[in-house]
Parts: sequence; C-alpha cells; structure tokens
Amino acid sequence: MMEQVPGALGTSASLALRLGQTIFCSASLLFMCLDVEFYSYTSFSYLVTVMGLVTPWSMSLALIDAYSVFINCLPRQPRVLLIVVVGDWTLSFLSLAAACSSASVASLLVNAGNSYCPTKLCSRYQLSAAMAFLSWFLSFASTLFNLWLLPSL
Amino acid sequence: MMEQVPGALGTSASLALRLGQTIFCSASLLFMCLDVEFYSYTSFSYLVTVMGLVTPWSMSLALIDAYSVFINCLPRQPRVLLIVVVGDWTLSFLSLAAACSSASVASLLVNAGNSYCPTKLCSRYQLSAAMAFLSWFLSFASTLFNLWLLPSL
Repeated sequence: MMEQVPGALGTSASLALRLGQTIFCSASLLFMCLDVEFYSYTSFSYLVTVMGLVTPWSMSLALIDAYSVFINCLPRQPRVLLIVVVGDWTLSFLSLAAACSSASVASLLVNAGNSYCPTKLCSRYQLSAAMAFLSWFLSFASTLFNLWLLPSL
Repeated sequence: MMEQVPGALGTSASLALRLGQTIFCSASLLFMCLDVEFYSYTSFSYLVTVMGLVTPWSMSLALIDAYSVFINCLPRQPRVLLIVVVGDWTLSFLSLAAACSSASVASLLVNAGNSYCPTKLCSRYQLSAAMAFLSWFLSFASTLFNLWLLPSL
C-alpha cells in the first residue's frame, strides 16, 4: 500500500475536485453557449473552446477516480500521472487565460451600457466568467496535489 | 562548489532572463502609461498595477544576479530561493491574467472601430499586451528553473 496523498489521482478528494471542475466547466459553457451571440467576441469564443476541452478532460478523470474509489484501487503508474499533471497544467493555464479575458470583456460591455448588452445577457457573461475562474481554481489545486506526489514515484 | 543549474538564481542565464523581464515590463508599462486614457478601462489599470509590481521585482533580482555573476558568487540559501520562487510564481500568474485581459480588451476595441480608439492608440494597447505576454513567458521560465533547483537544496 502506497502513501496516500489527499487529492492525488485515485482518491476521494480528487474525485470531489474533478466533479467540481466538471460542474463549473459545464455551467460556464452552458451560460455562454445558450445565447447565440458569443461568437461575435473573440474572448467568448476562446472561452467556449477552452471549456469544451476542459469539460471532457475533467469528466474522464472523474470517471477514473470514481472507478478507483468505488470499485477497485488502480495501481499508480508514473507515466499516467505525468500525463495527468502535464494536461492539468496546460488546461489550467488556458482556463485562467480564458476566464481573465472573458471577465474583462464582460466588465467592458457592462460599462459600455445597455446598447451593447441587455442586462440579462451581461449577467450571463459575468456568471460564465466567474464559473471559469472557479474551474481554474479547482484545476490548479489538483495540479498541485498531483505535482506533489510526482517526485515520490 | 555546488552544481550549477542554468537559469537558477545567481547565474548568467538568470541574469539574461531578468534583464529581458525588466525590459519587457517597462516597455509594457510605458506603452500603456504614456497616453492618458488607460484608467478608463479596468483591465488596462490592472495591467499597469501588475507591471508596476513586476518591474521593481525583476530589476532588483537582476541586480542580485549581476552582483553574483560579476563581483562574487553569493551563497545559495534555501529560504531566499523559496521566497524568489513564490514571488515569481505569484507575479507570473498575475501578469498572465493582466496580459490576457488587456489583450482581449484591446482586440475588442480594435473591432469596435475608430470611434473607440484611434489607430495609433489601439496599436499601443496591443503592443503593451504583447510585451506583457513576453514578460510573463520569461518570468514563468525563471520560476521553472528555480523550482527545479529547490528540491536539491
């Protein structure tokens, strides 16, 4: 039995983190996608692209964690962990960039007034950016936990 | 004599990285500050704040590196290295966020047309964001080099 780091791949803390990521990513994607005008702004299209990448990634890792927690514990392989760390790292940078750029564009649109975005649409943009920030935070947390474990393998 | 990691604190590669950071940060700050309208946009004010933090940080580390390279080699202390890594890490996240948000606002303003920003002003905003990206890249590189060294101490 190896030392258990809370939050590393295959533990229940990691499952909780991944579920949180999946929820926040999908929420961000839905808030942005369900109105039709997002593709007229570069940052919003970028946010949709990145969230479209992060959602399946988090979802598949959540499935792996769920399998490992509830059915049987998977053996820990350095190569798999390395791929997970590198993927998480890249995606967390991308989602930070997407969250920042869409938040700044949303705040600019809010300040520009009602002619650019009706209040309902603007608050959806803001909510979507906030969800993207939360998803970045969780994804960064799981990167750090996995990175912590990496040298011990 | 300790093992020399290229790019770690006190080497000539690190001096080059720090000088590059200082140049790009100051360029970004000057491009943004020398016109008077930056404070009417939240992202541009944020960029100026962050670059105002990164410039003295990079400059003082460049001075330490220059002392260590040209005058005499400073002893390597884990505590100092830890502070440098944490500071670099935080500032590189902040500058990535600033660069992304100001780039997206600049691109939005360019698309919005001439009434929002004259061509000359817009290209300055874009240049400033590009400089901030370059400074983020260099700062991230020195974080990684120092982080690599940290476990060996």
